[in-house]
Amino acid sequence: MRPRIALNIKSVDYEFLEETPGTKSELLLKSNPVYKKIPVLLHDDKPICESMIIVQYIDEVWTDGPSLLPTDPYDRAIARFWAVYIDDKWFPSLVGILKAQTDEAKEEAIGQVLAGVKLLEVAFEKCSKGKEFFNGETIGYLDIAFGCYLGWLRVVQIMGGGLSLLDEEKTPKLAAWASKLCSNEVVKDVMPETEKLLEFAKMLQAKWAQPAQ
Amino acid sequence: MRPRIALNIKSVDYEFLEETPGTKSELLLKSNPVYKKIPVLLHDDKPICESMIIVQYIDEVWTDGPSLLPTDPYDRAIARFWAVYIDDKWFPSLVGILKAQTDEAKEEAIGQVLAGVKLLEVAFEKCSKGKEFFNGETIGYLDIAFGCYLGWLRVVQIMGGGLSLLDEEKTPKLAAWASKLCSNEVVKDVMPETEKLLEFAKMLQAKWAQPAQ
Repeated sequence: MRPRIALNIKSVDYEFLEETPGTKSELLLKSNPVYKKIPVLLHDDKPICESMIIVQYIDEVWTDGPSLLPTDPYDRAIARFWAVYIDDKWFPSLVGILKAQTDEAKEEAIGQVLAGVKLLEVAFEKCSKGKEFFNGETIGYLDIAFGCYLGWLRVVQIMGGGLSLLDEEKTPKLAAWASKLCSNEVVKDVMPETEKLLEFAKMLQAKWAQPAQ
Repeated sequence: MRPRIALNIKSVDYEFLEETPGTKSELLLKSNPVYKKIPVLLHDDKPICESMIIVQYIDEVWTDGPSLLPTDPYDRAIARFWAVYIDDKWFPSLVGILKAQTDEAKEEAIGQVLAGVKLLEVAFEKCSKGKEFFNGETIGYLDIAFGCYLGWLRVVQIMGGGLSLLDEEKTPKLAAWASKLCSNEVVKDVMPETEKLLEFAKMLQAKWAQPAQ
């Protein structure tokens, strides 16, 4: 999702090659021999790996379109900081809700996710400076980093029986941001269908519930 | 180490405030409330956190000095890719050698570290393009990312009873790189003393050997 949103923002045409779940194509193995993972951007026959590195690459190659990172070095550092936080801390806690095998572990994971969205609500105020997105008037680096997990957030809320993790009451600014992001032209066709993601999440949860071997 | 090397390359004067091990200063807690961790760069009274984000910030603020990242977007993406690999995969394997509680686990971690240095030897050839450093003629982003672990590499080799993980035979280019990097003006005074690091690593190893609570 992340590279596709970035390419859409820059109005770059691309061919989307999907991998079949459970298999790895020859092209993928050749293009990302270290991690053997999607996403990989192939540009001028050269592979670029790791989603947020690809997003930065897109920003640096297609400089004509809207900037994905702020121009001020401090603002750039802050966007990078929260993007790393989201990948390394916040998303693992969100998945932790599904992985939890006890009520106690589940409550702890929920607490971490809620503490995280509160931090991100404050970060949004500082980064957006009154505009619609973290990146200001247009969707950028941090919007892409966080936005790609909104489908997962929805799925975890459904699986938690109406659990609410990001809403108008707790985090009004993020709630408005999420709704604007998801309906935006560059994002809406890239977002995964909730039903498909739900199916996938349920499959993972069943796997995690099995005793470790 | 990473921000200090970057500041040295850019010839920026700085004040180095050391944290006392085992405690966290008020200034640290205020400057990095999310992780409560060093390093933090304070510039114009604003805190920047996370070592490689700080290095990029330094590169973007002090543009007069030598560039820490290559100018070509593809080369930049490659430098970022390997820097993430070193932090997320390679260094945890190196520490895994000390953490291992069985011969089997130790052998596995050693195998991962050796596979990693072989990948990095090939990466060095591509990135350096015949020059001394990953970044070319001057030390840059990826040199800093990898170089700050050379002290740890030395310590793990000593604690492994003469274990050799990066040497002239296995990885001749990296061996030459490491020796040039460590003797370089911008690096040598920042490198930790092997004796002190050894003491710290032994303390950690003893802690890891205790049964989990």
